Amino acid sequence: MARKLVVKRGGKLGAPPGTLLHIGRHKPDSAAIRLITYGPEQLEESPVENLARFQRPERAGQISWLNVDGLADPAVVESLGSLYELHPLVMEDILNTDQRPKVEEYPGYLYIVLRMLRFDKDRQQIHSEQLSLVLGKDYVLSFQERPGDVFEGVRERLRAGRRIRFMRSDYLAYALLDAVVDHYFEMLEYIGEQVEELEDQVIDAPGPDTLARMHHYKREMLLLRKSIWPLRELLSRLARDENPLISEETRLYLRDVYDHVIHVMDSIDTIRELLVSMLDLYLSSVSKRTNEIMKVLTIFASLFMPLTFIVGVYGMNFDVMPELRWVWGYPAVMLLMLVLVVGLLVLFRRRRWI
Amino acid sequence: MARKLVVKRGGKLGAPPGTLLHIGRHKPDSAAIRLITYGPEQLEESPVENLARFQRPERAGQISWLNVDGLADPAVVESLGSLYELHPLVMEDILNTDQRPKVEEYPGYLYIVLRMLRFDKDRQQIHSEQLSLVLGKDYVLSFQERPGDVFEGVRERLRAGRRIRFMRSDYLAYALLDAVVDHYFEMLEYIGEQVEELEDQVIDAPGPDTLARMHHYKREMLLLRKSIWPLRELLSRLARDENPLISEETRLYLRDVYDHVIHVMDSIDTIRELLVSMLDLYLSSVSKRTNEIMKVLTIFASLFMPLTFIVGVYGMNFDVMPELRWVWGYPAVMLLMLVLVVGLLVLFRRRRWI
Amino acid sequence: MARKLVVKRGGKLGAPPGTLLHIGRHKPDSAAIRLITYGPEQLEESPVENLARFQRPERAGQISWLNVDGLADPAVVESLGSLYELHPLVMEDILNTDQRPKVEEYPGYLYIVLRMLRFDKDRQQIHSEQLSLVLGKDYVLSFQERPGDVFEGVRERLRAGRRIRFMRSDYLAYALLDAVVDHYFEMLEYIGEQVEELEDQVIDAPGPDTLARMHHYKREMLLLRKSIWPLRELLSRLARDENPLISEETRLYLRDVYDHVIHVMDSIDTIRELLVSMLDLYLSSVSKRTNEIMKVLTIFASLFMPLTFIVGVYGMNFDVMPELRWVWGYPAVMLLMLVLVVGLLVLFRRRRWI
Amino acid sequence: MARKLVVKRGGKLGAPPGTLLHIGRHKPDSAAIRLITYGPEQLEESPVENLARFQRPERAGQISWLNVDGLADPAVVESLGSLYELHPLVMEDILNTDQRPKVEEYPGYLYIVLRMLRFDKDRQQIHSEQLSLVLGKDYVLSFQERPGDVFEGVRERLRAGRRIRFMRSDYLAYALLDAVVDHYFEMLEYIGEQVEELEDQVIDAPGPDTLARMHHYKREMLLLRKSIWPLRELLSRLARDENPLISEETRLYLRDVYDHVIHVMDSIDTIRELLVSMLDLYLSSVSKRTNEIMKVLTIFASLFMPLTFIVGVYGMNFDVMPELRWVWGYPAVMLLMLVLVVGLLVLFRRRRWI
Amino acid sequence: MARKLVVKRGGKLGAPPGTLLHIGRHKPDSAAIRLITYGPEQLEESPVENLARFQRPERAGQISWLNVDGLADPAVVESLGSLYELHPLVMEDILNTDQRPKVEEYPGYLYIVLRMLRFDKDRQQIHSEQLSLVLGKDYVLSFQERPGDVFEGVRERLRAGRRIRFMRSDYLAYALLDAVVDHYFEMLEYIGEQVEELEDQVIDAPGPDTLARMHHYKREMLLLRKSIWPLRELLSRLARDENPLISEETRLYLRDVYDHVIHVMDSIDTIRELLVSMLDLYLSSVSKRTNEIMKVLTIFASLFMPLTFIVGVYGMNFDVMPELRWVWGYPAVMLLMLVLVVGLLVLFRRRRWI
Repeated sequence: MARKLVVKRGGKLGAPPGTLLHIGRHKPDSAAIRLITYGPEQLEESPVENLARFQRPERAGQISWLNVDGLADPAVVESLGSLYELHPLVMEDILNTDQRPKVEEYPGYLYIVLRMLRFDKDRQQIHSEQLSLVLGKDYVLSFQERPGDVFEGVRERLRAGRRIRFMRSDYLAYALLDAVVDHYFEMLEYIGEQVEELEDQVIDAPGPDTLARMHHYKREMLLLRKSIWPLRELLSRLARDENPLISEETRLYLRDVYDHVIHVMDSIDTIRELLVSMLDLYLSSVSKRTNEIMKVLTIFASLFMPLTFIVGVYGMNFDVMPELRWVWGYPAVMLLMLVLVVGLLVLFRRRRWI
Repeated sequence: MARKLVVKRGGKLGAPPGTLLHIGRHKPDSAAIRLITYGPEQLEESPVENLARFQRPERAGQISWLNVDGLADPAVVESLGSLYELHPLVMEDILNTDQRPKVEEYPGYLYIVLRMLRFDKDRQQIHSEQLSLVLGKDYVLSFQERPGDVFEGVRERLRAGRRIRFMRSDYLAYALLDAVVDHYFEMLEYIGEQVEELEDQVIDAPGPDTLARMHHYKREMLLLRKSIWPLRELLSRLARDENPLISEETRLYLRDVYDHVIHVMDSIDTIRELLVSMLDLYLSSVSKRTNEIMKVLTIFASLFMPLTFIVGVYGMNFDVMPELRWVWGYPAVMLLMLVLVVGLLVLFRRRRWI
Repeated sequence: MARKLVVKRGGKLGAPPGTLLHIGRHKPDSAAIRLITYGPEQLEESPVENLARFQRPERAGQISWLNVDGLADPAVVESLGSLYELHPLVMEDILNTDQRPKVEEYPGYLYIVLRMLRFDKDRQQIHSEQLSLVLGKDYVLSFQERPGDVFEGVRERLRAGRRIRFMRSDYLAYALLDAVVDHYFEMLEYIGEQVEELEDQVIDAPGPDTLARMHHYKREMLLLRKSIWPLRELLSRLARDENPLISEETRLYLRDVYDHVIHVMDSIDTIRELLVSMLDLYLSSVSKRTNEIMKVLTIFASLFMPLTFIVGVYGMNFDVMPELRWVWGYPAVMLLMLVLVVGLLVLFRRRRWI
Repeated sequence: MARKLVVKRGGKLGAPPGTLLHIGRHKPDSAAIRLITYGPEQLEESPVENLARFQRPERAGQISWLNVDGLADPAVVESLGSLYELHPLVMEDILNTDQRPKVEEYPGYLYIVLRMLRFDKDRQQIHSEQLSLVLGKDYVLSFQERPGDVFEGVRERLRAGRRIRFMRSDYLAYALLDAVVDHYFEMLEYIGEQVEELEDQVIDAPGPDTLARMHHYKREMLLLRKSIWPLRELLSRLARDENPLISEETRLYLRDVYDHVIHVMDSIDTIRELLVSMLDLYLSSVSKRTNEIMKVLTIFASLFMPLTFIVGVYGMNFDVMPELRWVWGYPAVMLLMLVLVVGLLVLFRRRRWI
Repeated sequence: MARKLVVKRGGKLGAPPGTLLHIGRHKPDSAAIRLITYGPEQLEESPVENLARFQRPERAGQISWLNVDGLADPAVVESLGSLYELHPLVMEDILNTDQRPKVEEYPGYLYIVLRMLRFDKDRQQIHSEQLSLVLGKDYVLSFQERPGDVFEGVRERLRAGRRIRFMRSDYLAYALLDAVVDHYFEMLEYIGEQVEELEDQVIDAPGPDTLARMHHYKREMLLLRKSIWPLRELLSRLARDENPLISEETRLYLRDVYDHVIHVMDSIDTIRELLVSMLDLYLSSVSKRTNEIMKVLTIFASLFMPLTFIVGVYGMNFDVMPELRWVWGYPAVMLLMLVLVVGLLVLFRRRRWI
C-alpha cells in the first residue's frame, strides 16, 4: 500500500502562498519539454533543450503546444510561468500535484487541472498523475508528472494533417481532455471485467482471498470516484460558460466529453453498488453455510448422543441388571436403537433438515 | 454473464472525434432500411435498396420516416448523415451504441438517443439496444442495432390512417418514444412478478438458489436504472424547452411520456428497496434458523452428556465400588437420571427454549 | 399477495394515445353517477340515470359536483369528457387507474389525479383507489373506481348549508382533497399502533412471525410512500402557482393540506426508520441469543467431556491397571473429577460466562 | 410506551375545516391566561380571569404579551381569535396540537407554531408540547398545552427592565423562540451524556439492556429530529423574508437562533450516526465473542472426542483383544493419548486459536 | 472520553442575548494580547499589557493585527468590542466557544468564526479550539481560546517583509484562514496513515482492539466532519459575495482555500467510507472464521461420535453377544470403523470441507 489516502502537504506548511515547491510523489530527474507548432499548412516538432533561451512562439495563425514531462525542477515551471504571465497560484497548483480537478479563469487564459489515471495490472492499483493544462489564445501548455501519456493519438492526428490542424487551440485542449477521458473507459472496462470475474467467484466458490479482493476494489472505486467526480463540474463549466477562448463549435465537443464523464461516473457507481451487493451475497452465503454445517453437526449429535447413552447403560457393571441376562437382551437393545434412529430421521425430514 | 458492465471503447482509443467506426455488440450482416412517407391522405411504404441513389423525400405536407435496422456498415450512417446534413458527432454517437440517453439540439434537427430494453426470459436478463432518433422539420430518422422492434403498433396506426397521419413529424417521434416507454412497463411488470414470487419463496421456503436470484435481480435493476434514469431529464427537456420543431400540442403528449418514465423509475426503486428488504429478511431468517438449530443441539447435548457421564461412572472397573453391589443400585441410578432429565427440561422450558 | 408491484399496462401496448380502455383492477358492473348542484341558497341532489340526455348544468352562481363511481364503461367517461371538453389525454388518464398523483393545467380546467387509500385490517394491506378530479370554473367532476368513499362528511356539510355552500368550486375541490388526506392520518395512526405493538414484541418476546410482519409493514410503507410522495409537489403547485381557477383564500386552505401531506410523509419516514431500527434490534438480539445458547453448550461440553473421558479410562479392560485394585481408587477419581469441575466453573466465572 | 408515533386526528375526520375541537393529549381542566403589558417605563402583569369582559390592550407604545396555558376549552381560543381577528385555520392549528413547526403570514400578523421539548429523565423519554405564537404589531399571543414553560428567564428580564423593555413585539417573539431553542441544547446535552455512557458500556461490558437502550435512544432521536427539522426552514424564513412586522435588528437576532437550530440539528445527526456506529460495534463484538466461544468448544471437543474413543476401544469386551493382556498396554495407551493431545495443541497454536 | 458530544450551554440558560459569559472548556488564567502593526515599510510588534489605556492604532496605510489568546476574562472581549464597535451578538459568539463555523456581515466589518483543530497523538483524539476573526478595513482581530497556534508562519512572513506586507487586511485574514486549513491537511494525513495501518491489521491479523479502534476513528471523523463542513459555505460566501472589505485579488486566494476545504472534505468522506468498508470486511472475516471453526468441530464430531457409539456397543455387558466370542471380532470392528472414517472423509472432501 504505497499510496497515501491523504497526501503530505506538510512540507509546505507555513510557506506563503505562491512559494514554488514541487509537492508530489513522482520525481524524475529532469523535465523533458517538447514544442509542437502547427497551422493548417505545416507542423514543426522540436524538443526545448535550453529553457533560458526559449522564446514564446508567436507566428500569426499558428498554434503552439508545449508539453512538459516532469515537475521535479520548479525553475522550469517558474520560467515558463513568467514567459506566459501565469498567476502565482497557477504555478503553485501545477507543482503541487495533489490538486482536485478544477478549471479557473484568469485574464487571457484558462487553467485546467485534472488527473490522468492508469490501472497497474500487476499491483491491481490505480495510479494517478496530475495533468495541468493552460489554454491561451494560440497556445496550450501541458504539464505532466512523468514521461509517458495518452496523447500519442493526438500527436499522430496533428502530424497527419487531419482536421485538428485547421482548428484553434481550444480544439487542441478538447482533444487532450478527450484522450484522458477515453482512457478512463479502458481502465474501467478492465476493472469491470475483474469485478465480474470476482462476482462469479462469490457465487460459485469463494476462495480465501475473495473478501479482501472485494474490499480492494471497493477502495479503488472510492479513490477513482474522488478523482473523477469533480471533472463533471469542470466540463460542465467549460461547455456552458461563455468564455471568448472557447468557440461555439468546440463547446459542442466539450459537451460530448462531458457526457462521457457522466457515463464514466455511472459506471463507477454501478460497479460500487454491485460490490456492495456482492458483499451482501457473500455474507449471506457464509451465514447459510454456517447454518448448514450446524445442521450436520446437530443431526450427528442428536443421533449418536442418545445411542451412546443407551450402550453406556448396558456397559454399567451393576451386579443386578436383569436385562443383561436375557437371551434376547442384546437384539432388543439394538432394535430399540434402530427405532430411535428412524424416529429421529423422520423428525428431521419433517423439519426439512435432511 | 455475457454482458459487460462497462463496454469496450478501446477500439476507438486515439481515433479522432468524428471517426465513424461501429462500436457495439450486435453485428447483423447488413442494414435494412425502410422508408414510410405519409400525409393525411396517403402513405407509401418501401424498402431502400440502393442508398447511393436514394434521394431525400421532400414533398410538401409529407412526413417521411426512415428506419435503419443494423449498424454494421458505417457507410450507411455516413451517406444518410451527409444527405441529412448531420453533425459528425451525431453520426459518431449513432454508431457508438453505448450512449447514455440524451437529447441534443442542432440547427434544424434534434438528436435523441435512448435504449430499447427487452427482458430475455430464458436467461432472465435484460437486453439493451440503442435507438437513435433524428427529428427534423418533416422527417424522422430512426437507427436500431438489430431488426425487430416495438414500433409495429405505430406502423399499424400509420397504415390505418389514424390521427397520427394528420400530425407533424414531432408527433411521430413522440409515438416512437411512447412505444419504447410502454414496453418498459411490460418488462417491469414481468420482473415485478418474478420478484414477488421470489419474495414468497424467501418467506416460506428459501431454496438453494434464492440468494443468487435476489442478487441477480438486484444487478438487473442496477443496470435498468442506469439505462432509464437519464431518460427523465431527456423528456423533461423535450417537454419544457422551447424548440420550434416541437409543437405545444405535442409537448402535452411528451409530458405524458415523462410522467410514465417517472412512474417506471418509481417502480424500479420500489423493486430495488423491496429486494434490499428481502435480503434483510433472508439474513434474519437464516440467523434465526441457526439459532434454532443451536437450541436443538444444545438441548440434546445438555441432556445426554450428563447421562453418558453417569453411566460411564458405573462402567468403571474399580474393585471397590459398593453401589455396584447394591440390589437397588441399577434402578436408583436410572431414577437419578430421570430426575436429572426432568429437571433440565423444566429449566429449558423456563428459558422458553422448548 | 394479490396486489402487483407494477401494474399490467400490457393490454394497452401498441394502442394509440387517446384510446379509451379501462386499465384497472376494480371492475364494478356499471357506473353510478350522482350530481349535486348547489348555491348559497339551495342544493339539489340527484342520480344521473341516463347519460345520453344529461345536460351540463349551467345556472349562474351555481356550483355542480358530478361524482362517478365505477370506471368499467369507457363510454361514460367519453361522453362526460366530450360534454366538458376534456383533452383525450385526460380521459385516458381517468380510465388508466395506475396514475402517479399529478396536477395538469388545461385551458379552462385543472386535472388532478391522486390516490384514495384504505387499510384493509383483515389482510393488513393497503388498498388503493384512483381519484380523478376535474376542476372547472363552476363545476367539479370526480371519478372513483368503486362505490364507497371518504366524502360523506363533505356531502353533509353541503346539505347542512355550511360555509362551503357560499364558496366557489375551488373550495369544493379543496374539501375533497382535505377529506382524502385526513383519511391518510387515520390509516397511518392504525399502522403506527400496529408497528409499536410489533416493537414491544421485538423487545420482549419475538414470535415466529415477527420477522415476516416487520417485512410486511416495510413493504406497505414502501408502497404508501410511492403513492403519497408525488402529492407533495401536486399540492405545492396548487397552493403556489397563479391559476385563475383558484382564489387567494382557497390557496391558504390548500397550503394547510400541503402541510398535512408533509406531516404524513414525515410520519411514514419515521415509521420506516423505526422499522429499520427494529430489524437491527431483532438481528442483534438473535445474535445475542445464539451467543448465549453457545455459551450453555460450551459450558456443558467443557464440563462433561473431560469427565466422560476420565470415567472411560477406568472402564478399560486392561489386565494390568493398578489403580483399579486400590481401595481408595474410586473415591480418588470422584474427587479428581470434582476438583476439575470446580476449576472449570471458576474459569468460566472469570470469563463472565456464568 | 404511552406516546403515539402518529397522533389520532380521527376525531376530526369529516369535520369542516375551521371546526374548533381540541385535538391533543394534555387536557388540564381549564386555561390559565396571563397578560403582561409593558413599555420602556412600566410593566403591568395580571391574570385574565374573565375572558368575556377582556379588552384588547391598545395603549400607544405598549407591547402586550398574552400567554394561555391549557387548550382544553376551545371557547378560550375562539374568543381570543375573534378579538385578535385570527383566521379560522390559525385557530384550528392552535387547538390541533400535533402541528409540524411552521410559520404563516396573514395580513397583520404572523402565526408561528413549534414544539417545546422536555426530556423526562425518569422515563428517559422526550415530552413534546405545542407552542403557538401569534406576532402582531404590538402584541404577542402564546398558547401552550400545559402550565410550566421555559419562559421564566424572559419574564425576569421584562420585570427587571432590561433591554427587552425598549424593543418591539418582534423582539419579544424572538426572546421566546430563543428560550425554546436554548432548552433544546440542555436536553441534547443530557442525552449526549447518556449516549456516551452507553458507548463506554458497549465497548467495555455490554449488559442485558444495552441493545434495547440503543434502540430506545435511536427512536428518541428519530422523533426529536422530526420535531426540530422543520424549525430550520421556519427560522430561515423569519430571518430572511421581508416582513414589516420584523425589524432589521431583530432579523440579526433571529439569524442567531437559526444558527443555534442548525447546531442542534448537527448534534442530533452526530448522535444518530454515533448510535448507528455503536450498533455496528455491538454486533461485531457479539460476533467476535460467539467466535471465541466456538473456539473453546471446538478445542474441547477435538481434544476429548478422540480420547474418549480410544478409552472406549479398550473398554470393549471382546474375548480376543491381545493388547489388554500386555503388561505395558495401559501405560502405552496413556502415552498415545498424551502424544495426541500435545499434537492437537500444537496444531491449534499454529492456527492461532490458543 | 473527556470531550462532550454536545456542549453545556446550560449556564447561559435564561440569560438575555448579549450577556457576556465565557462558555467554553479551556480556561487559561488570563488573556495574552499581542499587537502587530505593519505597512510596506515597517512592522511593529508589541504585547498589549494594559487594555484600559489601549488605543485603536489608526495610522494611514498601516494594517494592525490584534491577537487575543485566552477568553477567560469577558472584560477583555467587552472592552475590545466597544473599542471596535462590535455588535453584542458578535461579542457573545466570540466568548461562547462552541460556535458552528460561519461568516456574518456587519456594517464596517466581517465576523468569521471557525475551528482550529489539532490531533492529540497520545489520546488519539481531535482537539478543537474556536478561532474568531474580525476583519475591518485596516485591522484584523483574532481571538483564540488558548496560547499556541498555527500562525507562526504568517508572523514570519510579516517580519520578513514578504508580499503580505504590501497587501491589505483582507489578505492577512486570508493568510490566517489558509494556515488553519493547511493544518487540517497535516492532521488528516496523520489520521489517514493510522487508518491505513488499521486496514492492514484488519486484513492480516485483527487484534483484540481492532474493532474499538475502527469505531474510535469513525467517531473522530464524525466530529471532524461536523467541525469542517460549515467552512465550505463560509469560504464560498467569502470568495463569491461582493463585499467592499475583500478585494478581487484576495477573492482568488480565498477561492484557493475553498478548493482546499473541498479537498479536505473529500478526504474525510473517503476515510469514512473506507472505515465502513473495513467494518464490513471485519464482520465478514469473523463470520468466515466462525464458519471454519464450526467445520472443524463438525468434522471431529461426525467422525468420533459414530466410532464412540460402536465401541460402546461392544462394551455392553450382555451375557449373550456372540460377536464378542468370535476370534476375528475385534479386528472386524476396527476395520468397520476404518471404513466408516474413510467414507466420511471422502464425503467431507466432496463437500469441500477439507
